[in-house]
Amino acid sequence: MTFTARSQPTRDAVLAAARRAFAAHGYERTTVRAIAADAGVDPSMVIRYYRSKDDLFRAATEIDLALPDLSRVAAPDRGAVLARRFLELWDDPGTGEVLTVLLRSAPTSAGAAERIRETFAGQVLAMVRTAAGPDAGSEVSGRAAALGSFMLGTALARYVLELPPLATASRDDVEAVMAPVVDAILAGDREG
Amino acid sequence: MTFTARSQPTRDAVLAAARRAFAAHGYERTTVRAIAADAGVDPSMVIRYYRSKDDLFRAATEIDLALPDLSRVAAPDRGAVLARRFLELWDDPGTGEVLTVLLRSAPTSAGAAERIRETFAGQVLAMVRTAAGPDAGSEVSGRAAALGSFMLGTALARYVLELPPLATASRDDVEAVMAPVVDAILAGDREG
Repeated sequence: MTFTARSQPTRDAVLAAARRAFAAHGYERTTVRAIAADAGVDPSMVIRYYRSKDDLFRAATEIDLALPDLSRVAAPDRGAVLARRFLELWDDPGTGEVLTVLLRSAPTSAGAAERIRETFAGQVLAMVRTAAGPDAGSEVSGRAAALGSFMLGTALARYVLELPPLATASRDDVEAVMAPVVDAILAGDREG
Repeated sequence: MTFTARSQPTRDAVLAAARRAFAAHGYERTTVRAIAADAGVDPSMVIRYYRSKDDLFRAATEIDLALPDLSRVAAPDRGAVLARRFLELWDDPGTGEVLTVLLRSAPTSAGAAERIRETFAGQVLAMVRTAAGPDAGSEVSGRAAALGSFMLGTALARYVLELPPLATASRDDVEAVMAPVVDAILAGDREG
């Protein structure tokens, strides 16, 4: 189904309300009714534009991480560049909200776990593959898995569980903690 | 309040039922009534022994990680030793269930996040401090944070979100991915 440009503001308002609700309460505890009320529309409009809570969740959590092309970054700078991008993504109100939605919902929502799986395979693994170059072998997938796990865990500690010291550390301090670990992961066996 | 030895089997049955329920459904969606039914007792007995769902959750998620004393492990073996302990803890039905409860519940439960915070501060940070020796400075807390994040993220990917390739990899393959990263984190600036 396609919609007219005239309905775009309403669809955007629903999407924004959905992101707020999912971020605050997670997938399970969010209702189409509450999203509709927040967007100032009737629940039937939400269903008309997005079919189901599940499809609305998918639309609300589509994210382009815009990860750097590491083949253009000198090896010793990669960890710092990637740590900075990670912090930008989480601290930006727009992308940070989507990422919070995903991480907060994932343990109890198959849809959120699936979206994280897609984002990992399509963006993180692709970046590590490019960085490793065409001669790299199967160790690339282990390296990408380690990188993804470290990013997931750091985000969980800092932004969702709010565990000290990461939750209260400055961006510079978090970057200083992350960068050498990311470097070690990307360097793989060469320094392992 | 203290209880007699005669009530111990009932208290144990309630605790076991609580762990199963929290592991399967998370904190939010678990009810005292369902735990009582599973344990074969009246809900009032659950409240008599554990006062509230919150206190029962705390009792059900107390965990001794039994982390190794790394000061007795040669530096090049530390990553492998710690990765193996991590896998043992998660693959053991008893401790694995408690850890699953914590990680699955943490994003939506302040009690679970608090328990993870305590376990990190009391056990992970303490282990990294011992490994670093008495002359280590403030970099120890950053190192412990990076280690905790990496462990959290790996567990989330493998055991909760079931993201490939970690979810389907053999224990040996996971150990091979984790060990060099853990080594790099523990070595800190010396190799950073």
